[in-house]
Amino acid sequence: MNFASDNVFAAHPAVFAALTKANYGAAKSYGADHVTDEAQEAMRDLLQAPDAVVRFVATGTAANALVCAQLSPPYGRIYCHDDAHIQTSECGAPEFFTHGAKLVTLQGDGGNLHPDTLSRAIADGADEGLNGGMNAMVSITNATEWGTVYSPDQVAALAAISHDAGLPLHMDGARFSNAAAHLGCSPAELTWKSGVDALCFGGTKNGAMGAEAVVFFDPARAEGFDYRRKQAGHVFSKNRFLAAQMLALATDGLWLDLAIRANAKASVLGQAVQNGGGRLLQPVQSNGVFAAITPETDQRAKAAGAYYYPWPDPSVAGTGLVPIRLVCAWDTPDQDIAALGSILAG
Amino acid sequence: MNFASDNVFAAHPAVFAALTKANYGAAKSYGADHVTDEAQEAMRDLLQAPDAVVRFVATGTAANALVCAQLSPPYGRIYCHDDAHIQTSECGAPEFFTHGAKLVTLQGDGGNLHPDTLSRAIADGADEGLNGGMNAMVSITNATEWGTVYSPDQVAALAAISHDAGLPLHMDGARFSNAAAHLGCSPAELTWKSGVDALCFGGTKNGAMGAEAVVFFDPARAEGFDYRRKQAGHVFSKNRFLAAQMLALATDGLWLDLAIRANAKASVLGQAVQNGGGRLLQPVQSNGVFAAITPETDQRAKAAGAYYYPWPDPSVAGTGLVPIRLVCAWDTPDQDIAALGSILAG
Amino acid sequence: MNFASDNVFAAHPAVFAALTKANYGAAKSYGADHVTDEAQEAMRDLLQAPDAVVRFVATGTAANALVCAQLSPPYGRIYCHDDAHIQTSECGAPEFFTHGAKLVTLQGDGGNLHPDTLSRAIADGADEGLNGGMNAMVSITNATEWGTVYSPDQVAALAAISHDAGLPLHMDGARFSNAAAHLGCSPAELTWKSGVDALCFGGTKNGAMGAEAVVFFDPARAEGFDYRRKQAGHVFSKNRFLAAQMLALATDGLWLDLAIRANAKASVLGQAVQNGGGRLLQPVQSNGVFAAITPETDQRAKAAGAYYYPWPDPSVAGTGLVPIRLVCAWDTPDQDIAALGSILAG
Amino acid sequence: MNFASDNVFAAHPAVFAALTKANYGAAKSYGADHVTDEAQEAMRDLLQAPDAVVRFVATGTAANALVCAQLSPPYGRIYCHDDAHIQTSECGAPEFFTHGAKLVTLQGDGGNLHPDTLSRAIADGADEGLNGGMNAMVSITNATEWGTVYSPDQVAALAAISHDAGLPLHMDGARFSNAAAHLGCSPAELTWKSGVDALCFGGTKNGAMGAEAVVFFDPARAEGFDYRRKQAGHVFSKNRFLAAQMLALATDGLWLDLAIRANAKASVLGQAVQNGGGRLLQPVQSNGVFAAITPETDQRAKAAGAYYYPWPDPSVAGTGLVPIRLVCAWDTPDQDIAALGSILAG
Repeated sequence: MNFASDNVFAAHPAVFAALTKANYGAAKSYGADHVTDEAQEAMRDLLQAPDAVVRFVATGTAANALVCAQLSPPYGRIYCHDDAHIQTSECGAPEFFTHGAKLVTLQGDGGNLHPDTLSRAIADGADEGLNGGMNAMVSITNATEWGTVYSPDQVAALAAISHDAGLPLHMDGARFSNAAAHLGCSPAELTWKSGVDALCFGGTKNGAMGAEAVVFFDPARAEGFDYRRKQAGHVFSKNRFLAAQMLALATDGLWLDLAIRANAKASVLGQAVQNGGGRLLQPVQSNGVFAAITPETDQRAKAAGAYYYPWPDPSVAGTGLVPIRLVCAWDTPDQDIAALGSILAG
Repeated sequence: MNFASDNVFAAHPAVFAALTKANYGAAKSYGADHVTDEAQEAMRDLLQAPDAVVRFVATGTAANALVCAQLSPPYGRIYCHDDAHIQTSECGAPEFFTHGAKLVTLQGDGGNLHPDTLSRAIADGADEGLNGGMNAMVSITNATEWGTVYSPDQVAALAAISHDAGLPLHMDGARFSNAAAHLGCSPAELTWKSGVDALCFGGTKNGAMGAEAVVFFDPARAEGFDYRRKQAGHVFSKNRFLAAQMLALATDGLWLDLAIRANAKASVLGQAVQNGGGRLLQPVQSNGVFAAITPETDQRAKAAGAYYYPWPDPSVAGTGLVPIRLVCAWDTPDQDIAALGSILAG
Repeated sequence: MNFASDNVFAAHPAVFAALTKANYGAAKSYGADHVTDEAQEAMRDLLQAPDAVVRFVATGTAANALVCAQLSPPYGRIYCHDDAHIQTSECGAPEFFTHGAKLVTLQGDGGNLHPDTLSRAIADGADEGLNGGMNAMVSITNATEWGTVYSPDQVAALAAISHDAGLPLHMDGARFSNAAAHLGCSPAELTWKSGVDALCFGGTKNGAMGAEAVVFFDPARAEGFDYRRKQAGHVFSKNRFLAAQMLALATDGLWLDLAIRANAKASVLGQAVQNGGGRLLQPVQSNGVFAAITPETDQRAKAAGAYYYPWPDPSVAGTGLVPIRLVCAWDTPDQDIAALGSILAG
Repeated sequence: MNFASDNVFAAHPAVFAALTKANYGAAKSYGADHVTDEAQEAMRDLLQAPDAVVRFVATGTAANALVCAQLSPPYGRIYCHDDAHIQTSECGAPEFFTHGAKLVTLQGDGGNLHPDTLSRAIADGADEGLNGGMNAMVSITNATEWGTVYSPDQVAALAAISHDAGLPLHMDGARFSNAAAHLGCSPAELTWKSGVDALCFGGTKNGAMGAEAVVFFDPARAEGFDYRRKQAGHVFSKNRFLAAQMLALATDGLWLDLAIRANAKASVLGQAVQNGGGRLLQPVQSNGVFAAITPETDQRAKAAGAYYYPWPDPSVAGTGLVPIRLVCAWDTPDQDIAALGSILAG
């Protein structure tokens, strides 16, 4: 019963099939091969963005941090949520890749930045002068680290504020597929049509072995990016094996199918948590369930072999309850969800 | 007829089998899984180094540059050959990862550093004072960028000079397997028994999809390395898929079998080049053939679809000949070698 | 009437005299001169730290950021106050010099870190694993950015927590002299005797033109520091002109006299503010006055030519009052203080 | 008898006078003061460049490295001479500030880059693709590290090649004044009129305590430069004391007078060296004398207290002679020159 993360689960058979297909004799290296061409084209189609620059890397941290370095100078201020993955979970990768940029983190319920909060922060940053660094970019995560989603309208509101200040908007889409699945909107609507300038489209948490697409909707923003990626050790010589994974996901809507599946499992799990007396800390909008349970329930679940992380939530402080995060993948076994449900019900 | 590099060829079926085997339900992420454990253990066995710290990354550039950052401060001097991959082919990755170290490049025939050259350079560096930076480490490539190999004795001589000056010795072993295959010595003899402190053991050019092992023989030298790797975006969440590749290579001597195969093909190719009137620029000691051919031969080969790189060699200057590099992989088709032989023979 | 900062004021005549004296014919460059020797010795005497490594740089940002880079790896977590100068006012210099370290900022009244806060934060950081980076160092400012001071006991409490976790303690002493002057304790008591490992002893805000001393009490912590300073462009060829400034301050207790003078002026000003109906936001313990005044008073003062900064203080929110910072230097004219007092009194 | 460098000598009285004049009560910090305004204006006048952005830093290493970081991305190739100060004497500062750029060093007699050499190197670099990094900028030193000078025509030839390739041209002018003094041309002719994009105009080696001007002739190239300088700890709070030094040098042609004086002394010294049987390795075109003397002469001079550096010159190899560098400053005592002349004469 592993609900620790969606990255603990397997790669989809179609991904393996694509890798096998890509494993013919000789192919040009460093991305000059046909599989890479096809995968880039598939991603541009998926995003209805024929001019976009698409590149593949193997980890979400690399994807996000390379984009930060592309969009922010060393002395830049990068606005993001307090709980943004780039702030909490990447070991300072954005600071390392940018060579010193400052993450300016902002509060917001459920992992969501409110437009007013962003607007004030950007204005404050502009007043900082040399002391505080230069306003450089805004980064949001969709689906958020709290399992909630930004709608296209919400993205557009944040994009408008960013653009008014001359700042590009980055979307960390490690779970972009889950957000799109929940919203039922097109990837285009949720990204460039809403003002997103750079997207990290996650594959690893959605059926790939290790593959993410970095997308710059305006090619001008991608200038020099291949050098940057190379210098960071993130250009693969056998690039077709990265590309094949994304190609598989982009083919016949597999990315969406898998996300729909994972979301549905989380929905069932969220209901089970409530049935068992747990309290949802956020609505279940993607593939994560954030809940508060009693210490007894927590111990019972762990004793039964359930594996998941605590998830600090100030709103729970003082209640005696244990806040937790449960994540479902496309292939989380239904019986595990049922079993956890039974355990929670006591 | 692709002789451009060994990285243009396929992954071995055993690597795919290992990936498939690793693709069971849920596994702990970030390298806490059993496949990673097994692969690390297999590498330690292969190297007869039970205490070594073994980590996996996906590219040779990442492996080398992370080791440089681990062994050199930003103000360090890193001694290497003029033609070292870290100098010529990694887009400044060592400088980027170390945050400013200076590669001090040295001449040497056939890609080999001579002990006297290294010794003098280190002494000169020590005289530089603050201006020139601080002596930090020595890096050699084995097999070299010219397809030659350092014997254990040669490695030991360079290690002794390095260690006398207090500097660790790094071996870029993108083609380590090919060197060991040529020499017929054990990996241990060619590394820690000869004084190597850190090894990048290549998999990508020898049958993997994209996997390299970074090895620190003294665990004390690996302190903080996991953080460093994480911050650079080189910790995979589904690490088992990196590990499985190296596990396959380390199992039943596959790494050696494949290298023997590639070397044998290069040997045949080298003979064919000579039969066709080409001149070998270096003895064929691994899987690369470095040769000078006539412009007519060069054009004939290219017109016939042979794909390879020119390889600047000052010794050829003024002769009118074209210096080239031809590389064989474990699966370079024999008929391609035969075909190129025929073309060269005219 | 300039109360904007202590760095807006002049250099002391003794500093100029020392510079003039240092301006004899030829002297060895890069700090190998006699003035540098004397100044280092004078600082060691002042600190009763005969083994300390003392180096001079020209700016406080350089001093702090170089120390951070010396004590934290790129993947380090540096604990400091929310309002620490290294966080708010150095344009990301610590991140730049460390190559990516994360400043983990903590709340605390009046710019002071409470031991419990630090203790909890370090424990939390240790739990972060690779995601959050590695606990690396603690940095406090004394006098703080709110004009308050840490006593030797308070420093010792924070040092004990740091050291228990294996972390060195840095003191940003841009206004160290003001703190020592207020406390009446020796520099030794306030630093190494209380567990401080590295000190930035400010000169610029206390009568120098531009000079700070960086002090490592344990020479082992200074290994390679000269290279680091050189690589950052902070080794002066005519180093005697940096050293002479600090020598002047260290001679005959000038550093303390000037701080006592500045503190006394701030004390008078603080009283004047209160007499004028202003509310002190923090007790006046050094050379800064932090106060809340009415908007009318604020406008009257500005209209009269008083120059100072607003200083956001959440405790003032909603009161309609304007929170401000007023800083005195050793040579702030008494008539300016009196004049401002009159204006505030209305 | 100190001929080690021009940075071992004193600051000019006019510089001190300017510092004293700048030391009035309160002034705005961080360069918003009137002295800074005046000094910037004076430099723009001196360079006949009314639109140029002028900033002051305290060291030549900072000036050069900040310009490199401004003009080159981390993955850039910076073309310079083998003996360029940025390569040999700045401890990797350019690599540190740029975050990884590669200095591509080129041979050239007497420290001068030949246009053909540069042209070929840039073309080779363009062929490197991702492996070698991206062509970014060209840096020359004038006067060179060998005491020779580039004429405006020579600069223009290098600038044309650089600009044809889309690369900006930087001039390290640590001894710019000496070059201009020798050539008798205007600073404008030797810089922007010849195609120089960024200039580091040295003060420290020409009568200042520690001050250099960084000049961007096209303001667009200076975008964000103040943040970059701040983040590197090179923005002085009491900036007037940096500015005052440059203002003194820029006033009434002091910069030129001092350089003429230093050059004249070198000229006398060069003659004395030849009279004593020494061989000049390069013509004396600025304030340095590069010569080969016998080991006996070398020992005699050192025994008599002469202080200077050996200066490796391959052309001297095997002759048994000792290659040395002798540098004169504006205030090198004439009797020292005479004395050294006598010693050399035997």
